[in-house]
Formats: sequence, structure tokens, C-alpha cells
Amino acid sequence: MTYCVAMRLESGLLFASDSRTNAGVDHIATFRKMNVFEQAGERQLVLLNSGNLATTQSVISLLSTRTTHDGPHLLNVPTLYHAAELVGQTVREVMQRDSGGQTLQQGVDFGAAFLLGGQIRGEAPRLFHIYPQGNFIEATSDTPYFQIGEAKYGKPIIDRVVRYDTPLAQAAKCTLISFDSTIRSNLSVGLPIDMLLYRSDSFARSAIQRIGADDPYFSAVCRGWGEGLREVFSRLPDADWFDAV
Amino acid sequence: MTYCVAMRLESGLLFASDSRTNAGVDHIATFRKMNVFEQAGERQLVLLNSGNLATTQSVISLLSTRTTHDGPHLLNVPTLYHAAELVGQTVREVMQRDSGGQTLQQGVDFGAAFLLGGQIRGEAPRLFHIYPQGNFIEATSDTPYFQIGEAKYGKPIIDRVVRYDTPLAQAAKCTLISFDSTIRSNLSVGLPIDMLLYRSDSFARSAIQRIGADDPYFSAVCRGWGEGLREVFSRLPDADWFDAV
Repeated sequence: MTYCVAMRLESGLLFASDSRTNAGVDHIATFRKMNVFEQAGERQLVLLNSGNLATTQSVISLLSTRTTHDGPHLLNVPTLYHAAELVGQTVREVMQRDSGGQTLQQGVDFGAAFLLGGQIRGEAPRLFHIYPQGNFIEATSDTPYFQIGEAKYGKPIIDRVVRYDTPLAQAAKCTLISFDSTIRSNLSVGLPIDMLLYRSDSFARSAIQRIGADDPYFSAVCRGWGEGLREVFSRLPDADWFDAV
Repeated sequence: MTYCVAMRLESGLLFASDSRTNAGVDHIATFRKMNVFEQAGERQLVLLNSGNLATTQSVISLLSTRTTHDGPHLLNVPTLYHAAELVGQTVREVMQRDSGGQTLQQGVDFGAAFLLGGQIRGEAPRLFHIYPQGNFIEATSDTPYFQIGEAKYGKPIIDRVVRYDTPLAQAAKCTLISFDSTIRSNLSVGLPIDMLLYRSDSFARSAIQRIGADDPYFSAVCRGWGEGLREVFSRLPDADWFDAV
């Protein structure tokens, strides 16, 4: 599996993905699930992917190759909505070629989901969730984040902490905790984490931060969080109706 | 969906289940998912269920009715292993009748999973997880708890806190937090929670504690936990590599 999170907050965008790919527990590999399409000063697009590796690799290959061809591509479409449409179209094209357009074929799940966020000059930052069927939804200030892959373990902490006006650095801290919880509970999600923060209207070249087990900040946050949780837990009272048992 | 947890700890057994059943979001009802089979001083069995309501109700109806008939039933089998076998057999029987033994039939999932725990005189307390196929596994001191239904949201907190030697009252507190996290993140799991604690070798009649939104202890734990989390979160430092963004 995979775990990816993207947020569209007041101050900017956050993207994070794990890097474990598995086909059964005896075939585990590391693949980056974050791809950047950028033109300095003009557009900054980040694409996260989950699902069937053959499908996601093909979709990204085609999207990348086509940026040097004629026709609409991620580096020339006028809006992020068009970019999401293009990713959806490419997902359908690959699924049509590989599995006759079915997500399930011969017991194999060919499906893939994508998160596409970024900013194109002339627009505010936007974030889309593209489904295996190629259709998509957009994040709003009411629902400022999307997850794909093994999303459930790490959802409660985000639900408790993140709002549209949460500062980027705090959202990043929360995201790392969300990954830590997921990794502890599910073997198919693994380090390193790729993280990218984009400040609204900066159009700055984005650096992907790669966070491994030895990252001092990540270790400090995980340790502090674990210790803090146990401390809060032990401070909470036991119910008196347990005395009877 | 449903969320159920059962634990087999050094000091006894814990069972908890939510009570929301839904067939689509416009057909939501409250059903108890915890059933007790007991003979004071001799055996104490608790059965939690998740999955297709028609299947689980039939399984429980048959198991209950048969306790007054001849032949092996939950109130006369010699060990908890035999009891788990009996539940598994009954699951297979109902699935055979209703869907030709297939979990998926006509686009409907007929599957149901059960947690069966308790103590029969002559044995230590035991806990089993029975699958929709009727086979089952048993909890050990390495893996002292099982979940069925919407298990993922509430797993991280249990993984962090509960060990085989965790006292029952603490395990109960952790379980309530696990339910709170699940209920906040998933509409298909809802209050009230049914909870039952069994102290090893007591063979005491077990009282099911029904915990609703107005339960003062549950409210205090949820509020204290939420506030504590936010406090721990705000105490953790922001990374300096975010300054550049």
C-alpha cells in the first residue's frame, strides 16, 4: 500500500508520501510517489500517487514525456482544473490499454488514485483528488485535506488538529505524527517520507524533503508525541464503575 | 459498519462494541452487537459481531435457541475452543443457507466476523476471532487484542498503550479513546458503546455497561484526551527546515 496526504491551507500547500511499494510481503521495494512539474515563476504542480505501480508509473511517464510534445500538457494547461482533467484522462487511457478500462481484472486491482496540487499564475493554489475512474474532486476551506492509500490510521490526528488556517509548519508536524501512527500500525507503509511545502504565491522551486528514521526532527517529534500521549493517558482518571469488577 | 474490540489481558477480559448499523447512510439503526452466554459459577461467554446484520442475527438466534436443545451448544461445550468451533460452524450454516456459502453474492456482502471470549471452568480465559469463512484464531500474550469492523482509526492508540499486563481499568480507558477517535472519523460507527469487563477466574455475572454521549466518565476522558493531545502537539517544536519555506 501507500500513504499520501495533501493539504490546501490558507498559507500554502503541503504534500507528503511514504515510499514503500509491495506486491505481497515478500516483494517490497522503495519508490518515490511524489512528482513535481514546475516552471519557475509560472507554475508549480505536485502529483502524489497510490495504487497499482504499473498504472501509476505509466501515467507519470506519459504525463512527463508529453510535456515536451505539442498539445495540452501539465506545463502548458491554463488552470489546475485543466491539469486535473489531464491526469484523469491519462489514468483512463492507461486503464483502457492495460485492463480494458476495468479497475479489477483477473483478480488484480489495476486502480490508482492521485492527489494533484499546486499553483498556476493567475489562480490561487488548488488541490484535487483524482479517482481510479478519472473523475476528481477539489479541496475547499471546509475540507482542506485529502488522503489516499492507507488513510485511516493517520486520519484521527489530522481531524483533531488541522483547520484551513493552521500554519504550514504545524500542519507539517501533524502530518509527520500521522505518518508515524500509520507506519506503527501497518507494515505496508514505510519510511522514508517525502515532504514538500509550498508557500502560496511564491512560485518558488520546491525542494522535496526526504525524511528517514535517522532524521533528528522526525525522531524528536515521534518520541515527544509517544511520551506525551502516555503522559496524558496516565493523567486521565479511571472510571469508578470499574472498581466493582 | 461497526467497531468492536476485545482484549485478553493478564487480569481479565475486555469487550466493547458500538451500536450503529447502516445499510446506506439513510438507513441507520441501533443494534446491540454484544451477546452474553453465561452460567453463574461455571461459564461466562461474550460474543461480539460485525458485518451483515441478517447473517449475524441468524447466527446469534441459532446459537441462543440451541442452548435449550440437545446436542453441543454454547452452554455445554467443554472448552472455549469448542465454542469457537461451534460459532464458526453456525456462520458456515447460515452463509450456506443465505448465499450458497459465498461471502459476496449479487453485489451484497453476506460476510460476518465474530469475537468470542470468556472462561469455562477448568480453563484460563480465552479469546477467539472467527472469520466469515468460519475458521478462527486465538489471542496470545504477544497479541492480546482483536478488532473487527472499522478497526483502523482506533488501532494506533491501542498499539501504543495496551500490553498483556495492562490493568483492566486502563485498557477500558484506552478502549473508550479508541472508540472516540473512530466515531469522530467515521460516520458508520456510533454511540452508545457497550462495554463489559470480566475479571479472570471470577465467573461472576457480567454487567454490560452502556455508555452514551451523556456518560460523565466518557465525556471527561474524551475532553481530557482531546485537550491533552492539543497541548502535547503545541509543545512539540516546529522543524527549522520549514523556515526556508
